[in-house]
Amino acid sequence: MTATAIDVETVPSYVRDAWWMPDPAGARGAEVHDASTGELLALVSSEGLDTAAAVEHARTVGQAELGKSTFHQRALLLKELAMHLNAQREELYAVSARSGATRTDSLVDIDGGIGVLFAYGSKGRRELPNSTVIIDGAVEQLAKDGSFLGEHIYTRIPGVAVQINAFNFPVWGMLEKLAPAFLAGVPSIVKPASPTGYITAAAVRMIVDSGILPAGSLQLISGSARDLPDHLDYRDMVSFTGSASTAERLRAHPQIAVGGVRFTAETDSLNAAILGPDAVPGTPEFDAFIRSLVTEITAKAGQKCTAIRRAIVPAGLVDEVVAAAADRIRARVVLGDPRAGNVTMGALASREQLDGVREAVQRMLAAGAQLALGSLEAPDVVRADGSTGPAGGGAFMEPLLLSWPDSDADALHSIEAFGPVASVVGYTDVADAVRLAARGGGSLVATVCTNDPDTAREILTGIAGHHGRVLILNREDARSSTGHGSPVPHLVHGGPGRAGGGEELGGIRAVRHYMQRTAVQGSPNMLTALTGIWHSGGDRRFDAGHPFRKPLSELRVGDAVRSDLREVTLEDIAAFAETTGDTFYAHTDAAAAEANPFFPGIVAHGYLLLSWGAGLFVDPAPGPVLANYGLENLRFLTPVAAGDSIRVTLTAKKITPRETDEYGEVAWDAVLTNQNDELVATYDVLTLVEK
Amino acid sequence: MTATAIDVETVPSYVRDAWWMPDPAGARGAEVHDASTGELLALVSSEGLDTAAAVEHARTVGQAELGKSTFHQRALLLKELAMHLNAQREELYAVSARSGATRTDSLVDIDGGIGVLFAYGSKGRRELPNSTVIIDGAVEQLAKDGSFLGEHIYTRIPGVAVQINAFNFPVWGMLEKLAPAFLAGVPSIVKPASPTGYITAAAVRMIVDSGILPAGSLQLISGSARDLPDHLDYRDMVSFTGSASTAERLRAHPQIAVGGVRFTAETDSLNAAILGPDAVPGTPEFDAFIRSLVTEITAKAGQKCTAIRRAIVPAGLVDEVVAAAADRIRARVVLGDPRAGNVTMGALASREQLDGVREAVQRMLAAGAQLALGSLEAPDVVRADGSTGPAGGGAFMEPLLLSWPDSDADALHSIEAFGPVASVVGYTDVADAVRLAARGGGSLVATVCTNDPDTAREILTGIAGHHGRVLILNREDARSSTGHGSPVPHLVHGGPGRAGGGEELGGIRAVRHYMQRTAVQGSPNMLTALTGIWHSGGDRRFDAGHPFRKPLSELRVGDAVRSDLREVTLEDIAAFAETTGDTFYAHTDAAAAEANPFFPGIVAHGYLLLSWGAGLFVDPAPGPVLANYGLENLRFLTPVAAGDSIRVTLTAKKITPRETDEYGEVAWDAVLTNQNDELVATYDVLTLVEK
Repeated sequence: MTATAIDVETVPSYVRDAWWMPDPAGARGAEVHDASTGELLALVSSEGLDTAAAVEHARTVGQAELGKSTFHQRALLLKELAMHLNAQREELYAVSARSGATRTDSLVDIDGGIGVLFAYGSKGRRELPNSTVIIDGAVEQLAKDGSFLGEHIYTRIPGVAVQINAFNFPVWGMLEKLAPAFLAGVPSIVKPASPTGYITAAAVRMIVDSGILPAGSLQLISGSARDLPDHLDYRDMVSFTGSASTAERLRAHPQIAVGGVRFTAETDSLNAAILGPDAVPGTPEFDAFIRSLVTEITAKAGQKCTAIRRAIVPAGLVDEVVAAAADRIRARVVLGDPRAGNVTMGALASREQLDGVREAVQRMLAAGAQLALGSLEAPDVVRADGSTGPAGGGAFMEPLLLSWPDSDADALHSIEAFGPVASVVGYTDVADAVRLAARGGGSLVATVCTNDPDTAREILTGIAGHHGRVLILNREDARSSTGHGSPVPHLVHGGPGRAGGGEELGGIRAVRHYMQRTAVQGSPNMLTALTGIWHSGGDRRFDAGHPFRKPLSELRVGDAVRSDLREVTLEDIAAFAETTGDTFYAHTDAAAAEANPFFPGIVAHGYLLLSWGAGLFVDPAPGPVLANYGLENLRFLTPVAAGDSIRVTLTAKKITPRETDEYGEVAWDAVLTNQNDELVATYDVLTLVEK
Repeated sequence: MTATAIDVETVPSYVRDAWWMPDPAGARGAEVHDASTGELLALVSSEGLDTAAAVEHARTVGQAELGKSTFHQRALLLKELAMHLNAQREELYAVSARSGATRTDSLVDIDGGIGVLFAYGSKGRRELPNSTVIIDGAVEQLAKDGSFLGEHIYTRIPGVAVQINAFNFPVWGMLEKLAPAFLAGVPSIVKPASPTGYITAAAVRMIVDSGILPAGSLQLISGSARDLPDHLDYRDMVSFTGSASTAERLRAHPQIAVGGVRFTAETDSLNAAILGPDAVPGTPEFDAFIRSLVTEITAKAGQKCTAIRRAIVPAGLVDEVVAAAADRIRARVVLGDPRAGNVTMGALASREQLDGVREAVQRMLAAGAQLALGSLEAPDVVRADGSTGPAGGGAFMEPLLLSWPDSDADALHSIEAFGPVASVVGYTDVADAVRLAARGGGSLVATVCTNDPDTAREILTGIAGHHGRVLILNREDARSSTGHGSPVPHLVHGGPGRAGGGEELGGIRAVRHYMQRTAVQGSPNMLTALTGIWHSGGDRRFDAGHPFRKPLSELRVGDAVRSDLREVTLEDIAAFAETTGDTFYAHTDAAAAEANPFFPGIVAHGYLLLSWGAGLFVDPAPGPVLANYGLENLRFLTPVAAGDSIRVTLTAKKITPRETDEYGEVAWDAVLTNQNDELVATYDVLTLVEK
């Protein structure tokens, strides 16, 4: 435990596209120890690091370099990065084991983080345009004559995304924030928690060595963030993960409280798992509940902001739940150094963490809790060499379950032991369970184990406003569920109140957090020019040949074709009814059709109009238009009776070249009108067009 | 100016569904004066008001009463309220005139506020489901076998919406926040600014007398909010409009800084109008610029958070802009008591406001500004009786234009005179104009006058991240534009940095601000039960008869019909090509079709498949299904060649009864599969069905 500055390495920072180390002559950095052995691993210090220069580098070089690429291009870089890290992840596992993480724990952190990169790499291409602006919602008509429109766009914030991360997920914590910020086009400065920042630094080393990310898009501060927040303003964003007290301190910083820095926090919360009244012992839901409870207090040694802290169960089942969980723990949990093969639960991240958890448990015991399972004594553990004995310098702790004579004890709903600890508390009825869950004051996640839809509905209605995520476990999803404690990149991670009030992940929702939403008002032509998407009412070009003859590279939004009128006869309608089998009375029975409140009599099938529309706009010979792969936003507006005529106007609306294919998507604005120029139908035709 | 408590009325509060007055024996309230004459109008005090009881009333009675209605029902109440206020608005105009507001100013406040109610009354029914939960985005498949899904729902926050409003829009300010909060189902407590709170109280009087709103849904605190914030927590939301300094004070309140109260602010900002290089004198864009500038410094006597404070123009045009604006002001502006017929610009709201504006202008002059138009001396004005003379006790001020030798002077970009004052500042090139606009440190709105798409694009790209709204004015929309200074209910109102960092309005976006977004995970059946919307993979009922025979009241989500297989022949395809005219080569030319990368050879038309699909699912006789009004989300997934067969499975997915019609919308999940059970196409069929 004693060492000089010469003996151990200092964890490096990475700023302004170069590795940075503190002056060796300066003050000695903070010590970082192996969680299982107490051995000194490294020193951490950012003393002398110029944080203002890092911010400036991100705002200039980072913004400029990221600004050269589109969402699709950035998404491809994320995918490439994911593959690069995936190929080297064994190296990260070895480093990660020093933090007390078992192989499964490391998988959640490392593979989980890589999985986020893959998810954004995919979603960025499937759900975003191949440009730099996201359109939000529908166009709003702001003038009766159609000459003035409004719509919303998202553009990246013109600053830097600062991550202040927690110790428990050194890789995932960085990547789950990096992916959406990068996709938005915003450079990141990562400041991991010091106790496990060496693992983050190892991952950053791999990322930098890959050369995949553009200059300025990622910087790392190992050690204290120092005066970094002083240099931020409303252009920037801080995403904090950690304790409520640190979040509070950051929120009070003048640049965040007054200076307009965007701030989001995800803090630990007293997450609940509710056992439904129907989920009695012997049901699959009871078993799923016990499995979840044990997983959540033992995975990462319970050091997860999403872990179950309060198991809320029917009052009469408290003892059975404790007994079942105890059985499972005894059967499954092997506590020890994760480098020993059979260990399933590792150490806490540090002695300081261990002291903090013990102290929190003591306070709960003093407030009326009873130890239902486990002990606060230092346990015997499996050492790296396979031998068993006292924990020594390792930060080990047995899983603990607490029971509470008073389900309403304040301590139960407010003190969090950030380790392998959960309370089992009884409720009287479903309304009481809802009330107890809400007493957590805002949580990241709650699991509800029930197979009764009414119970699920009542609980969800009662607790949704207090939670960022709710998992309903029943026999149908118990096996396939991703679990209570696992945020997934597709869904929002965060929660109100005690959980920090922030949101992370959630697919493209998280990308938008790094962007400014701006309402833009203008004429159809101006909005077309600004967004690259043709707006109804804007100019069209009919004189440039049939647009189906143009490859993607030549096609321009506004290129259009308008057909002649084609008359619909009663015979056409009857023939269509016969060949398609669509003999709905409105197409076949004059008297019945007239009685319908919407039709003047027999009318043409909507699908006849669509089919004829295609016949009217299509240019049949082989050419760059490869296929019509879909259709959106179809509305039939004016019925077409026999004797009416229709024409189609087709306008190139949105052109999306693919990065990895020789073609792209073109969405066409299609409008069917009748002989009186009334709107018959409007829709978007989706096609694949060669470059 | 002297009066006893007996002489003047005290503005009442409305709490716990009853009118409330301070104890007459208590301290005298704050005085409120007529803006044009200085006459004492009223006293304002909330001394002794039990704010904790008001919060509790909202959380209990308000939440319970609002919880009984759906979005559509609440939207109809908003529409009813709009019509009620509309019928009595002359009464509000008379009260409003006392604040120095001209008839046009009052129109913006009163009719503008009523317009927000109408807009939400309409959007609530068109864009929200007729239920209490909003689904956000697509369902996410979280397990390969389809048994575990995730999606996002919005449910109302379980607390109260507290409005802290500014003096300049006493009616609109309340209604633009009330409408989205009410629609979300969240009760409001309104605290208007004291100088014009009597106008808000008059509007609340009308609302209460109408009996339209449910109990507990609206409370009014006239005077100080006192200890109201102490009683709020993470369940509640505070929407603040006003000065940056008050926003700062509120943000530092422990319940907001730490307690998790949701907080949004909209504060004044130094909004810019940029004159494009192309918009030289003589162009329609130059004229539009001058009109906007003059309107923005004279409407509401320039007391608008959105007013133009910085006119950013080509350096060589500063003098011409000042001269043109001066001409228009001389020709159009008549300063005086709005009760005189010909007055076009009224007083500031109070002497205190006037002092504040003069003081701000003095600081700008001291920092290098020059008075280009107008004077700080007390002007002669038109009095209510039509005579002209000194302003007396009225808070009048002439429109002022300032010019700046140094376009980069800090004072120019940081001092706001909240009155009829704007700076005209020169730029060197477009990049410089962008830089100067951004120096405002975040603004609510910027107007760009240009008819050049490239200029518009360059400016928008540069300033979007710093602005909540950008208006592009050109010859196409100059006449129909709703104007620089007017937030519209359809578009977001708010902006980053100095503008407060919040968002209001923006259609349904604002409703979501009063709701919690929660990720919900579960099996398809469980998510169907929780949302009322059928989820793919969930149970279907095929044994309950054809679902087209069921009226809305009997139809249940999951009711389904599955057809037999129907074989597609080459003759069918050829006939379809001939009758529809869709002779695209993939349907007619075997060799060309085979050369297409997506087709095995000649394939059936997508529209043939859709049309046959309808023929396969339709139940032709008259019945409750009235019409197929549209189609969404169509994707063609597997091509169908001659010899293949298709069948359709149609499942009731979403049922939306209308409040005001004898029918409602039903969306059906439609799936076409082939003889190998491969997915051929998926889409949603939209129908109208009788109740």
